[in-house]
Amino acid sequence: MNTLRAFFFAGAALVACSSASAAELSVAAAGQYAQDTYAEYLDLLSLPNDAIVPADIRKNVEFLEAAFRKRGFVTRQLENDGKPMLFAEQPDADPELRTVLFYMHLDGQPVVPEQWSQKDPWTPVLKRRTDAGEWEEMDSAKLFSGSVDPEWRVFGRSSADDKAPIMMLLATMDALKASGAAQGVNVKVILDSEEEKGSPSIRKVMSAHRDLLRSDAIVINDGPMHATNQPTLIFGNRGAAQARITVYGAREALHSGHYGNYSPNPAQRLATLLASMKGDDGRVTVPGYYDRVQLDADDRRIMAAVPDDEDAMLKRLGIAKPDRVGANYQEAMQYPSLNVRGMASAEVGDKVATVVPEKAVAELDLRTTPESDARYLAKLVEDHIQQQGYHLVTGTPTDEERARFDKLASFTYQTEGGNAAATPIDAPVGRWAFQSMVEAFGENPAPVRIRMMGGTVPTAEIVEALQVPFVIVPLVNADNNQHASDENMRMGNYVNGVRTLYSLITRPLQEGAQ
Amino acid sequence: MNTLRAFFFAGAALVACSSASAAELSVAAAGQYAQDTYAEYLDLLSLPNDAIVPADIRKNVEFLEAAFRKRGFVTRQLENDGKPMLFAEQPDADPELRTVLFYMHLDGQPVVPEQWSQKDPWTPVLKRRTDAGEWEEMDSAKLFSGSVDPEWRVFGRSSADDKAPIMMLLATMDALKASGAAQGVNVKVILDSEEEKGSPSIRKVMSAHRDLLRSDAIVINDGPMHATNQPTLIFGNRGAAQARITVYGAREALHSGHYGNYSPNPAQRLATLLASMKGDDGRVTVPGYYDRVQLDADDRRIMAAVPDDEDAMLKRLGIAKPDRVGANYQEAMQYPSLNVRGMASAEVGDKVATVVPEKAVAELDLRTTPESDARYLAKLVEDHIQQQGYHLVTGTPTDEERARFDKLASFTYQTEGGNAAATPIDAPVGRWAFQSMVEAFGENPAPVRIRMMGGTVPTAEIVEALQVPFVIVPLVNADNNQHASDENMRMGNYVNGVRTLYSLITRPLQEGAQ
Repeated sequence: MNTLRAFFFAGAALVACSSASAAELSVAAAGQYAQDTYAEYLDLLSLPNDAIVPADIRKNVEFLEAAFRKRGFVTRQLENDGKPMLFAEQPDADPELRTVLFYMHLDGQPVVPEQWSQKDPWTPVLKRRTDAGEWEEMDSAKLFSGSVDPEWRVFGRSSADDKAPIMMLLATMDALKASGAAQGVNVKVILDSEEEKGSPSIRKVMSAHRDLLRSDAIVINDGPMHATNQPTLIFGNRGAAQARITVYGAREALHSGHYGNYSPNPAQRLATLLASMKGDDGRVTVPGYYDRVQLDADDRRIMAAVPDDEDAMLKRLGIAKPDRVGANYQEAMQYPSLNVRGMASAEVGDKVATVVPEKAVAELDLRTTPESDARYLAKLVEDHIQQQGYHLVTGTPTDEERARFDKLASFTYQTEGGNAAATPIDAPVGRWAFQSMVEAFGENPAPVRIRMMGGTVPTAEIVEALQVPFVIVPLVNADNNQHASDENMRMGNYVNGVRTLYSLITRPLQEGAQ
Repeated sequence: MNTLRAFFFAGAALVACSSASAAELSVAAAGQYAQDTYAEYLDLLSLPNDAIVPADIRKNVEFLEAAFRKRGFVTRQLENDGKPMLFAEQPDADPELRTVLFYMHLDGQPVVPEQWSQKDPWTPVLKRRTDAGEWEEMDSAKLFSGSVDPEWRVFGRSSADDKAPIMMLLATMDALKASGAAQGVNVKVILDSEEEKGSPSIRKVMSAHRDLLRSDAIVINDGPMHATNQPTLIFGNRGAAQARITVYGAREALHSGHYGNYSPNPAQRLATLLASMKGDDGRVTVPGYYDRVQLDADDRRIMAAVPDDEDAMLKRLGIAKPDRVGANYQEAMQYPSLNVRGMASAEVGDKVATVVPEKAVAELDLRTTPESDARYLAKLVEDHIQQQGYHLVTGTPTDEERARFDKLASFTYQTEGGNAAATPIDAPVGRWAFQSMVEAFGENPAPVRIRMMGGTVPTAEIVEALQVPFVIVPLVNADNNQHASDENMRMGNYVNGVRTLYSLITRPLQEGAQ
């Protein structure tokens, strides 16, 4: 992760530019520019986009290529095994301005049509909520003329994730052209075609086109905004690694009457081993696990300012008390996690038998941080297991290992699950984005700043190829139900997304107090 | 278990009888009496006896009824839902003698014929081991005349478990009649028809015919002898109870990125809970769990005398070191066990997902002892779980319970798995059986005395109805592979079984030093 650290300082070298503030776009004006794209938006949502069907991906790419060209962009399909990514840039880049690369993705989650309450996930439907709280279908034509209620929503696959941000950007370009406002940054765009498959090729494609994609910062428009629907900036995300512990007992499952109390029980031993890794408060007790995470007073202040309603969260989750890894939810996400995501030994339920099992398995996931990568954390866990007296084997123990070592386990891990990524909140790109939002939406409440989100998104894959700082600017409503059969986009968020992007693009990205 | 304790003292009231020693039966004589029954034995093995087919059970009962009548017994079929049990007694019981009830079972395990290396599990086959260690089929006629090698074996379902002991008893009655030796006890016999189904009705049938079955002691001829093939006496067995712990986390499985480090992980908590129940040495640490088991110096001496080859056992199991519940294998079996027989949370392997699971389950089996029954042990575990801070719920927690209690679990248990049973080794029946065997086989090596075996057999169900002391006298070779597709009976054990039963029946059962 040192490479990521390095370009924060590269970011600090950005020179001061002439203008220090963004242009304004009224809600009414933004609403109009947005509305002018709704027909195009519904057409886009009508194109299936599961990356499992390359021909579908190509239709989306062609549609969007035309849409960006219409706004004066030069486009290029970046070949990727038949599922091209789309690159777009403005041909008349101002050499005095910094360049920002906007990342979005055009592919979507698979659908199970019969799970949807509408006829077809690929036929978007406009809905409003009745007084009884039900979603009621409306005539989509209502979107195209007259006033659009910000609470109305368009339901359909990718309505929010992630086609809405793409359309917001197109509407923003329309607004810029119409208003004649000066851009503060040059715009480049990369549209991923396999994000919902874990962006397996984004790193490769971006590395192959490094010159084309060269930019001073990356803005990632993906994911939901904070639950309060306040303007949201995210400065990093945890990475993910997987590991597996298998504890071995006797060669075969044994009769628990004849061997219970005699042949060591691997499920019991696995339990004891796992128990040695975490305290009752949920804190990891593997030596060194949290050591590399350093939070200062500023970090804690910014995290405490995030308007999470933890009481509501606990109620929704159905738990009385959270683990005590951090003082609050945000702080908990700054630390690497050690999570038992699955556990098994012999059988439970109908198939249970009275045996001493022959082995027990725990599947772990380790959420990583930029300072604590998968290799570092996995090694600590491995050392800890050995410290508990285990001899580590590769695969099933041999007869000799069985005869020689009392405690036998295997520990394997994979690190390809995605790296953590982070930009310091006070890096130029962070200040630029924060001030843009303050100008667009005011300071009360201030934009929500998430130091590092808990989940893993392919930020590292996106940014590591270019070695530039980034910020994640989610634009869609938190309750968009992405990936589910009731995915939806709130129209008020669509309009505010245009205002957000307009503010970002008209504000110069520069070094110094902004 | 107080009732079981009570009749040890009843046993102490047995009056002294005239003769204090058993009659002798030479190996050659026993071999001849045995051989005279081999044709009948093979005929019996040709009758399928899975209790799932009542008509098959009835054919076995009819065959054996005729066999006992031929030896002068009065018989009676004890009705049991179409699968009668067979009772047999000698009509001319001597009122001066104690009466012993011999328990055996005529039903057998189910078979999967294609798993057998012989044509049909119900067509018994004589085999001998070649120099290369393979089992080679022989002409069965070799059993009926000429010398029978003690190492020859008859393969077939129930060849050992448990038709051989029935035939040994019939051969013994032939021997008694031919030799004219005086009986030391009156003989009654009960043949169970559902032992391989867990003897679900033996208690009911025996209770219904308490007067008919009235006796002073019960000898159970079932199960394998000690691995050394030395004469074996077993004075008890552990019982079995099942329990289940479910630890609850959030209402639903959660995204481990967003909630790892925040929402408590029930698999982790279950692990910690299980870890709190046992030490690294395998000893249960639930307060009071072992307290009721009292072993004195005599007990330990007798257990240490059992010629277990623990090194060989460890090698066979594939473990370097046993749990340290007892100083040796026998001692470990004297204590109740707390065994994780199955464990599960979310998924492992191909189906694993990156979640914080919503619950975790451990299936336990508790092997009980006469002093520590299922209810007592389960209550200790339940109390212990609560001591760890858990609020116990019935089924899935309610919203209110979720809001109120940090740690939620359910704990359920069933006690119908079979009670433990034990007769003190120095009870009259134990001394009678031991001395009979010493007279038949000598003192060097002495008969193996197992204070309590680890597995659960329906001894309690058999003996509790009559409230008399018992001893288990297994007669078949340890490597008979009962229940498997290569079940077999060693002919040397058949002959020694006749000697054993002859010695038992000719030795008076009485109080005092024997």
